[in-house]
Amino acid sequence: MTARYLEDFTVGQRFGSGRLRMDTEQITTFAFAFDPQPFHLDEAAARRSIFGGLTASGWHTAAVTMRLLVETELKPAGGLIGAGLDECRWPRPVRPGDELRVECEVIEVRPSKSRPAQGLIKLRTTTLNQHDEAVLVYVVNMVVQRRSEAGEALRHLTEDRPFGKVVLAGDAQRPLSLQKPNLRTTKAGP
Amino acid sequence: MTARYLEDFTVGQRFGSGRLRMDTEQITTFAFAFDPQPFHLDEAAARRSIFGGLTASGWHTAAVTMRLLVETELKPAGGLIGAGLDECRWPRPVRPGDELRVECEVIEVRPSKSRPAQGLIKLRTTTLNQHDEAVLVYVVNMVVQRRSEAGEALRHLTEDRPFGKVVLAGDAQRPLSLQKPNLRTTKAGP
Repeated sequence: MTARYLEDFTVGQRFGSGRLRMDTEQITTFAFAFDPQPFHLDEAAARRSIFGGLTASGWHTAAVTMRLLVETELKPAGGLIGAGLDECRWPRPVRPGDELRVECEVIEVRPSKSRPAQGLIKLRTTTLNQHDEAVLVYVVNMVVQRRSEAGEALRHLTEDRPFGKVVLAGDAQRPLSLQKPNLRTTKAGP
Repeated sequence: MTARYLEDFTVGQRFGSGRLRMDTEQITTFAFAFDPQPFHLDEAAARRSIFGGLTASGWHTAAVTMRLLVETELKPAGGLIGAGLDECRWPRPVRPGDELRVECEVIEVRPSKSRPAQGLIKLRTTTLNQHDEAVLVYVVNMVVQRRSEAGEALRHLTEDRPFGKVVLAGDAQRPLSLQKPNLRTTKAGP
């Protein structure tokens, strides 16, 4: 699938991602850098916390959601560029061993009034665990190029990605290293 | 400062963080793992993009914002636990060399109707660059313990953090390594 321009999006379109497994090392590595609180860092301290066990930072879940979204067939021309979220909630914590996937649906498509080469799509994005329970839900406003010369100039950006796709859960035995990623190319799920 | 319970928060309270400098290695390392798009990974490709140069993933900015928030004097009892965001926008991109800091203000304080040991505070959080321009603004709903036995049991969680404070910009010459953090203890700024 090549990149999609604003004209290629319609309300009701749905996109699904592959899966990514969260393990303890990923969770604590992310938390150490960005959210160093006991319930994200230490199993014993986490058991005494409101969560009753180790959980991923909500921002880690959000970051992994982005990783999964990049690999979907959504592929807006010019890339996935979020202007903001209308709402965002974390209805349930993510725990070691959880396998996450993302489903999203286009809920609005409109041209920009001020920038004729652009438009906006509104996307409801749900991150689910292996029990199909939502762990993150947000509505994001994304900037998308219109099918025009201006848009065309940016087209190559989404077509020459140098990296492979998301690791499916079955292959994700190694922790996600942020230094030397061991991401293998694989097919995205439904 | 020890942990703050719901009763310790009032509308209008403001908290400020230290500063963290974003460099190219941090930006591309985060992007490689979580947001592998050309404008976050490669300077030449980024120059041809809508951003005109390398920018940090918006989720990286959000993660760094969390890191800075953890180190403020906000320190809710039980930890910083966000239930969700009412709104969130990235008004301006973050570029290599930018120094980020966070300002936040309590805009609502209320007890939980369903959980007597808890309450919620609403916090408007603004992440600013070195030119005092907003790069991320969100309103977050945080779960906070009430001053009660239930809350007291969680108190130690915010008081025995094993790690130091955020690196001030002047010390942040080394890239933020997610494997072996070189975070030095330092005083948080205003």
